[in-house]
Amino acid sequence: MTTTAAHTAAGSGVSEAELEAGRRAYELDRKHVFHSWSAQEQIKPMTVIRAEGSYVWDGEGNRLLDFSSQLVNTNIGHQHPKVVAAIQEQAGKLCTIAPQFANDARSEAARLVAELTPGELDKVFFTNGGADAVEHAIRMARLHTGRYKVLSAYRSYHGGTALAVNVTGDPRRIANDYGNAGTVHFHAPFLYRSQFHAATEAEETQRALEHLETTIQLEGADRFAAIILESIPGTAGIMVPPPGYLQGVRELATKYGMMFIADEVMAGFGRSGKWFAIDHFDVVPDLLTFAKGVNSGYVPLGGVAISPEIYATFADRPYPGGLTYSGHPLACAAAVATINAMREERMVEHAADLGETVFGPGLAELAAKHSSIGEVRGVGAFWAIELVKNQQTREPMAAYGGSSPAMNELIAACKSRGLLPFANFNRIHVVPPLNISAEDARAGLAILDEALEATDRHVES
Amino acid sequence: MTTTAAHTAAGSGVSEAELEAGRRAYELDRKHVFHSWSAQEQIKPMTVIRAEGSYVWDGEGNRLLDFSSQLVNTNIGHQHPKVVAAIQEQAGKLCTIAPQFANDARSEAARLVAELTPGELDKVFFTNGGADAVEHAIRMARLHTGRYKVLSAYRSYHGGTALAVNVTGDPRRIANDYGNAGTVHFHAPFLYRSQFHAATEAEETQRALEHLETTIQLEGADRFAAIILESIPGTAGIMVPPPGYLQGVRELATKYGMMFIADEVMAGFGRSGKWFAIDHFDVVPDLLTFAKGVNSGYVPLGGVAISPEIYATFADRPYPGGLTYSGHPLACAAAVATINAMREERMVEHAADLGETVFGPGLAELAAKHSSIGEVRGVGAFWAIELVKNQQTREPMAAYGGSSPAMNELIAACKSRGLLPFANFNRIHVVPPLNISAEDARAGLAILDEALEATDRHVES
Ligand SMILES: Cc1ncc(COP(=O)(O)O)c(C=O)c1O
Ligand SMILES: Cc1ncc(COP(=O)(O)O)c(C=O)c1O
Repeated sequence: MTTTAAHTAAGSGVSEAELEAGRRAYELDRKHVFHSWSAQEQIKPMTVIRAEGSYVWDGEGNRLLDFSSQLVNTNIGHQHPKVVAAIQEQAGKLCTIAPQFANDARSEAARLVAELTPGELDKVFFTNGGADAVEHAIRMARLHTGRYKVLSAYRSYHGGTALAVNVTGDPRRIANDYGNAGTVHFHAPFLYRSQFHAATEAEETQRALEHLETTIQLEGADRFAAIILESIPGTAGIMVPPPGYLQGVRELATKYGMMFIADEVMAGFGRSGKWFAIDHFDVVPDLLTFAKGVNSGYVPLGGVAISPEIYATFADRPYPGGLTYSGHPLACAAAVATINAMREERMVEHAADLGETVFGPGLAELAAKHSSIGEVRGVGAFWAIELVKNQQTREPMAAYGGSSPAMNELIAACKSRGLLPFANFNRIHVVPPLNISAEDARAGLAILDEALEATDRHVES
Repeated sequence: MTTTAAHTAAGSGVSEAELEAGRRAYELDRKHVFHSWSAQEQIKPMTVIRAEGSYVWDGEGNRLLDFSSQLVNTNIGHQHPKVVAAIQEQAGKLCTIAPQFANDARSEAARLVAELTPGELDKVFFTNGGADAVEHAIRMARLHTGRYKVLSAYRSYHGGTALAVNVTGDPRRIANDYGNAGTVHFHAPFLYRSQFHAATEAEETQRALEHLETTIQLEGADRFAAIILESIPGTAGIMVPPPGYLQGVRELATKYGMMFIADEVMAGFGRSGKWFAIDHFDVVPDLLTFAKGVNSGYVPLGGVAISPEIYATFADRPYPGGLTYSGHPLACAAAVATINAMREERMVEHAADLGETVFGPGLAELAAKHSSIGEVRGVGAFWAIELVKNQQTREPMAAYGGSSPAMNELIAACKSRGLLPFANFNRIHVVPPLNISAEDARAGLAILDEALEATDRHVES
């Protein structure tokens, strides 16, 4: 095992006071903090004492290259000076104001989001995060259509609240599913593990659309309020939809009178190398949910961009939904600064470029070299490495919904070499900040190259 | 109509640049901002261009005394310098980090919340606001008990997401109720409009508890995961539970094996003159939800404090819930600073004192004088004025769930005199910052005294 100089405490300038604060943070964490998605007594949280740009520092003072963007939210990296300054300025001016008022930070954030979103999605309802954005988008669709049922994909994630987790199509739904959420799941395209026994992208598109239409008809052609889809499914594996699929979904949604909700919480705000992932496909949804990248999560914020037709439904009839922090000025000021910085520094273009010049070719090289890689796929700064025990059978290196010693070894090998990876089941995602330098991006791939020997050892022939 | 000097633009030092920013904020708001709970084309949002302490400034530069604390969240008033400074400092240090890590701001906020909450509620799950706190508290109760149904009160509010709005017992639930949320509503005590034909508080308590137990038995003694109650119902009317009621609820919850969730999102963090409203009753719930006052909403934050028994359920079994911004460092740093400032400046004691020396006697005086006041009730900085057309029949000045010309005139009369009121149906709530000066508190009551002539004129004899 090699250790790169970059991540040793020695060179990082971390002070003893920071380390001591980190130790106390850990101790109090174990006493008082209840963590998301975890068996509380089986975790040993890594402490983070500092973060900057594409780097975080752990409790021992080791510097790690953040190839996760946390939960794929710090699209502009950590502690971007322009956004930090904007938060500090807005904090000094006006932290919060109730949602019923008009306020400059809120208005300007809404204007910018409306400007960036596709089509005429010009009205913006702000929430605190992704889950409540999804909750409200579904509510709007239900009330607009007068229908209840919602279609969503297996292998998807839409949030943790009761309704959002029930449209979710990953194992986290199961413990929360009482069979009455009105959700119906179907299979979206995923050629590498095709449900439709397709051999080509065109075949996968066609068969997936046929499957979707059949599902609609068998479940009731006039029963669905909405279909919700991640434009590019994120946590579930970054399966970029093949050409034609999202257009087909758009047509089916229109044909069957249901709203098309594009969930851009993870894929949006530059992650894919365009402002929204759906922009790759020239499709306009009826509702678009966002969070994370809108302000890189510096202050909690999410929202729904709304079509004129749906807006009209609530023009003279009250929208029955809301929240105390809708359009929170501090969160909105952070969004304004983030969007402006992304534009000024051409981060979206940079992400597209990284995808084409660094991640695409670099990951293809890793795939050619490592026997444990089944597939690499992605776009922009949004890539997945699918690890398998056997390239022929494609048996995953960890079961769906689980982990495995092999995956744990891979993650540990990354961390010990100074790389913070995003891992999910049998996958490692390459999802660094959009503004990571090409040099750091390559350094991260080089660490992955070394670390992947851990899973290569578990390949069964 | 008199106009107090305090709220005219002249004296307020508002600059032309601020006014211009306000005009643009309004214009963009009408173009792009979708507002909570509203018919979008029927509202004319007031613009807020500045806020400080107990005051806000509207788009014309008028200064208004904030008797609403926005949505009853700015318990420490606007722009408290210690909290602003803490946000600025934390922003410069670390805005955000994923929930799986340990971090000093998160740990310290959890420690303080655990210290303040009653009993052994020593584990804290952080959310973004009140609704998701309620969602997760119910989920914990469901998984801990293995049961599904949830009891909650009519005349209550628990949040805007699908599950939270369905435990809610106010008109906002109705459009969101598809009959399948597993919620059962009952009547909590409300002597002024007693469902139980009670004449005394003791009678109301006894009958309300009988009613609750009967409901439990008729719905299924072993079917309920939880009972959720605001310790003091807030938006629904600040009905302080009569002595013995919450103890009785605690006993019934224990007897029938369901979790008692105290929703302290509005009543908590000093609002009632104690850290939590439930502290008035010497009762310890199994789960306690909070938001708003925890950091006065300066940065979106909510959470659930968890009993050791429920924590134990998720010690070795994953808790199937989470969110990207759980334990957000910026929000947590604001909570730490807020709680410390509240302690240092003895705001909770001050709120208790205001209740006893200013609001209690002052509102009683108004009630004695104004024919449109049916009842005043409350504690600490948490009071309701119930307006009626007729003191004998108690017919409300606006229908439940509605507004009326009389109430609109009252609200307008308050605003034109420089007071920003919190209004709900036929009620005005007196819910200023906890640290409002006694002088400002009295000034606000004096404005109410004048404004109430508007409703007095609508009294029908
Ligand atoms: C596509 C998608 N939708 C919704 C969510 C939920 O967002 P939040 O965690 O902010 O509630 C996520 C979070 O990862 C997501 O990736
Ligand atoms: C008692 C109570 N619970 C929950 C909520 C929901 O909080 P939020 O608006 O932050 O979702 C509120 C909001 O007013 C509340 O008063």
